[in-house]
Amino acid sequence: MPRVEVGQKVLNENARIAGELRQRFHEAGTLCLNLISSPGSGKTSLLEQTLGRLPQDAKVAVLTGDIQTENDANRLRRFGFPVKQITTGGTCHLDARMIERHLQDWPLQELDVLFLENVGNLVCPSSYDLGEEAKIVLLSVTEGEDKPLKYPSIFFKSELMVMTKVDLLPYVPFQAETAIENARRVHPEMEVVKVSCTSGEGLETWMQWLEHRRKAALQTTAQPAI
Amino acid sequence: MPRVEVGQKVLNENARIAGELRQRFHEAGTLCLNLISSPGSGKTSLLEQTLGRLPQDAKVAVLTGDIQTENDANRLRRFGFPVKQITTGGTCHLDARMIERHLQDWPLQELDVLFLENVGNLVCPSSYDLGEEAKIVLLSVTEGEDKPLKYPSIFFKSELMVMTKVDLLPYVPFQAETAIENARRVHPEMEVVKVSCTSGEGLETWMQWLEHRRKAALQTTAQPAI
Repeated sequence: MPRVEVGQKVLNENARIAGELRQRFHEAGTLCLNLISSPGSGKTSLLEQTLGRLPQDAKVAVLTGDIQTENDANRLRRFGFPVKQITTGGTCHLDARMIERHLQDWPLQELDVLFLENVGNLVCPSSYDLGEEAKIVLLSVTEGEDKPLKYPSIFFKSELMVMTKVDLLPYVPFQAETAIENARRVHPEMEVVKVSCTSGEGLETWMQWLEHRRKAALQTTAQPAI
Repeated sequence: MPRVEVGQKVLNENARIAGELRQRFHEAGTLCLNLISSPGSGKTSLLEQTLGRLPQDAKVAVLTGDIQTENDANRLRRFGFPVKQITTGGTCHLDARMIERHLQDWPLQELDVLFLENVGNLVCPSSYDLGEEAKIVLLSVTEGEDKPLKYPSIFFKSELMVMTKVDLLPYVPFQAETAIENARRVHPEMEVVKVSCTSGEGLETWMQWLEHRRKAALQTTAQPAI
């Protein structure tokens, strides 16, 4: 089918650019993380809490994707770190070329951590490699515990599941352990952190995960041959 | 660009089949409704509450879409009405051909209302006409009030916005009126119903909307020429 062939060409080209990005992140020692979830699961809230907990001299930046509006970038800019909005205009995911284009005037050597906040979508972003070190999937306790089974691709490809809005657990029928079991049926090594951006619960654990991954990225930095 | 051309061909073919479906629904007096939302906004819960409130002799059926699992069909079958799962296997939306294929052994003359529960996705389903009489978008109060601005296409195309999980309003920062204003900035005629499938609030209003639309669909049924 021509549709499949063209789709494959698009994905091959995306993979080529993502490979170049990954190499650049690696050489610069930049930890690049790709945050993916349904709309409204709390990606921007988690980033707000994260940026608010970092020292002012942290070398961190965010590229945040949406179909329309600059809302998320406006929410995130007030923490003083570099933030750019990627407005996809209808495309349901970020792709590697969008990342490449928006990084043109950001020297990666000056970035320890780059967050990519994907378009709110649990399906399509899983097919597009952005050169990230790890994908992180967010699942809020107001969704169903069976989301990992219904949308297995993104849970399979994510290293960490951040369970969000756990302050609402008393008011919803969500069973956290069932959701974690489901995630590990799809991806047995899935790491899990439970957080609430309202109560602050779990955010220290998340920041520790981040710091651990940041140090690991710096240690594996490829040294340029002289 | 070949991708755009092929994409357009796919959409044209979808529109052709959707047009045929619409004609068949019209002739049979079947009200077809296409429910769209983020994953976890409560489409299946709303359908459970709806089916549970209908008389046992109501002529109602559901086609429910997911990437994987029969979970939703299993939840909905216990009400005794015909239900089929459409497992898309990776495709991020239902398309008209899937609907046509799954309707093959359901005589439309025996259906007053057909619910299509789309794949959980606020982006891609908005591009695929399924021959429905109306699209209904669900927005839960645990998401952000700016979703209509960030995902305008589906809010523009939907006749009704069902605001779900309103029992959680005391525990979340969500401003219902702001969300409604945002929806009406995108679509000034948007009808709105607020519901909670936990407390039952608003479900009578939703059932009245449904009954009103069902009667309207029967009245406009095209009579076959004899």
